[in-house]
Amino acid sequence: VRARLGAIINARDTHVCVPLQGSGTFSVEAAVNTLVPRDGHLLVLINGAYGKRLARLAQMMGRRITQFETAEDVPTTAADVDGLLARDPSITHVGLIHCETSTGIENPLAAIAAVVAKHRRALIIDAMSSFGALPIDAQAIPFDALIAASGKCVEGPPGMGFVFARKSVLEKSEGRSSSLAMDLHDQWVYMEKTTQWRFTPPTHVLVALDAALAQYVEEGGQPARLARYRANCDALLTGLAELGLKSFLPPAIQAPIIVTVHAPRDPRFAFKDFYARVRDKGFVLYPGKLTQVETFRFGCIGAIGPDEMRSAVHAMRDALDEMGVR
Amino acid sequence: VRARLGAIINARDTHVCVPLQGSGTFSVEAAVNTLVPRDGHLLVLINGAYGKRLARLAQMMGRRITQFETAEDVPTTAADVDGLLARDPSITHVGLIHCETSTGIENPLAAIAAVVAKHRRALIIDAMSSFGALPIDAQAIPFDALIAASGKCVEGPPGMGFVFARKSVLEKSEGRSSSLAMDLHDQWVYMEKTTQWRFTPPTHVLVALDAALAQYVEEGGQPARLARYRANCDALLTGLAELGLKSFLPPAIQAPIIVTVHAPRDPRFAFKDFYARVRDKGFVLYPGKLTQVETFRFGCIGAIGPDEMRSAVHAMRDALDEMGVR
Repeated sequence: VRARLGAIINARDTHVCVPLQGSGTFSVEAAVNTLVPRDGHLLVLINGAYGKRLARLAQMMGRRITQFETAEDVPTTAADVDGLLARDPSITHVGLIHCETSTGIENPLAAIAAVVAKHRRALIIDAMSSFGALPIDAQAIPFDALIAASGKCVEGPPGMGFVFARKSVLEKSEGRSSSLAMDLHDQWVYMEKTTQWRFTPPTHVLVALDAALAQYVEEGGQPARLARYRANCDALLTGLAELGLKSFLPPAIQAPIIVTVHAPRDPRFAFKDFYARVRDKGFVLYPGKLTQVETFRFGCIGAIGPDEMRSAVHAMRDALDEMGVR
Repeated sequence: VRARLGAIINARDTHVCVPLQGSGTFSVEAAVNTLVPRDGHLLVLINGAYGKRLARLAQMMGRRITQFETAEDVPTTAADVDGLLARDPSITHVGLIHCETSTGIENPLAAIAAVVAKHRRALIIDAMSSFGALPIDAQAIPFDALIAASGKCVEGPPGMGFVFARKSVLEKSEGRSSSLAMDLHDQWVYMEKTTQWRFTPPTHVLVALDAALAQYVEEGGQPARLARYRANCDALLTGLAELGLKSFLPPAIQAPIIVTVHAPRDPRFAFKDFYARVRDKGFVLYPGKLTQVETFRFGCIGAIGPDEMRSAVHAMRDALDEMGVR
């Protein structure tokens, strides 16, 4: 499983895959706790809930952080990061959310990674929503850690995460973690030595992930998966436009993974009612995660194709008609 | 699921069940991080690998600890704890492993809990191996936290743990955890408010645990499960005695959950070879976890009965015969 996961990002000998029990956030926390020195300084790039979560978990474990926040529909730019790193030489690490699950926005990973490397700082990437779908090449994009999980675009069941850590950095991180369970160095060394997990593994999740990865390869790997998700996203966006529902993000920064739309302004619209009606027709919507505007979200991922996306649009059309919403 | 788990230990209104992603150790760490104040002092009672692990994780997160260690075949006594607490009033919490998975030894929970309560200190119980099989009544045994997991004696798949926390104590523990993912207070408050998990739950594990708990109730709950495990253990011990294999623990302190036996002294015996032969016959042994003596272990738990235990004994007899071991 580790080798198959590594192949997806061309990890080769530079990065090792360290799996960890728990949800993806557990792996993000483990990466920060193990790889950022206790006197390190983490710059967190924020444009959504997961960037905020990264800042919060680093702060809770006592690491010094600086937050740089843009609006939820504004990607962080390489120029932003260039300026921030030039102004503050005490920053040792940069934390970036590749694709923010709270909106679906894609941040420019390659350009930011190049700038971080130019300044000789280390990059930690939360790739929870993008891993497996968007292309990431560990030999072309410099990073110390990239984190993802068993669900999302590799289409396994949730229950474990994993960190691709730069081997030369992980080797030097012994004794740094303040958490036993989240000590990635210990987890990695034990696994290499014994071929076993350090603590009880989520056995059934692991076997299912193995099967999901076989299906991933069979489908044609990352390019095929991205093409299917893009077809899903296009079918959805076309259908939403027909319903008069407006996408929250402009197409240029919309990853084909999660789509956020504005709720209709019609006073007859109430999300709870809409949610229940669409669910009764066989489709579960994703509530919005924005504080300023009323939105809801769609996942374009999972074992589904454009036909399912169009069926979902039909269900929404019927629900809106029933509610008398125009 | 939380209500069903709580019913097993008669949690009523005094203790709340807080589930957590990850293996059981994650829940142990979360309980210590959330419930022991940062200036607290934890006395850890050790007679095996899991006691040592509890001490290590508390130390890594920066809590002050004192370790009290007995030999792996010597239970901690209430008198030991009475003396330790009388001598050191700075101790705020006591950590106890109810049944040490490394040997199968049962520590006298009720007597130790009474002594801890008499001294007005708080008790944290790792009940990973005993929960669901040995009787534990939260209304009779005073504790602040009792930790177990989805596998072991409730016979669900591994992948999540849970902490029964004293409600009045958990309510006062906001902002104490140095880990976001392991903040039980935050996990509990969010779950109560939203009926959802704070971070992605191990969905499939949870559904399977729900089914396992229905089977648990159907079988007759804790008394029936204990009776079956006791029958398994008796069948195993009788068979082992016939093979001339000696149990590591005396019967009085042997919980009917995990049994450790001494490896045969015959020079023709090699565990690796024995393991492979028994596995080929359909039974997977558990390597020993003791450093001083060569042992191996058996689980008496899971969806098996005395017939399976006798079949395992037959397989071992055949393997020993093939190896020429007497």
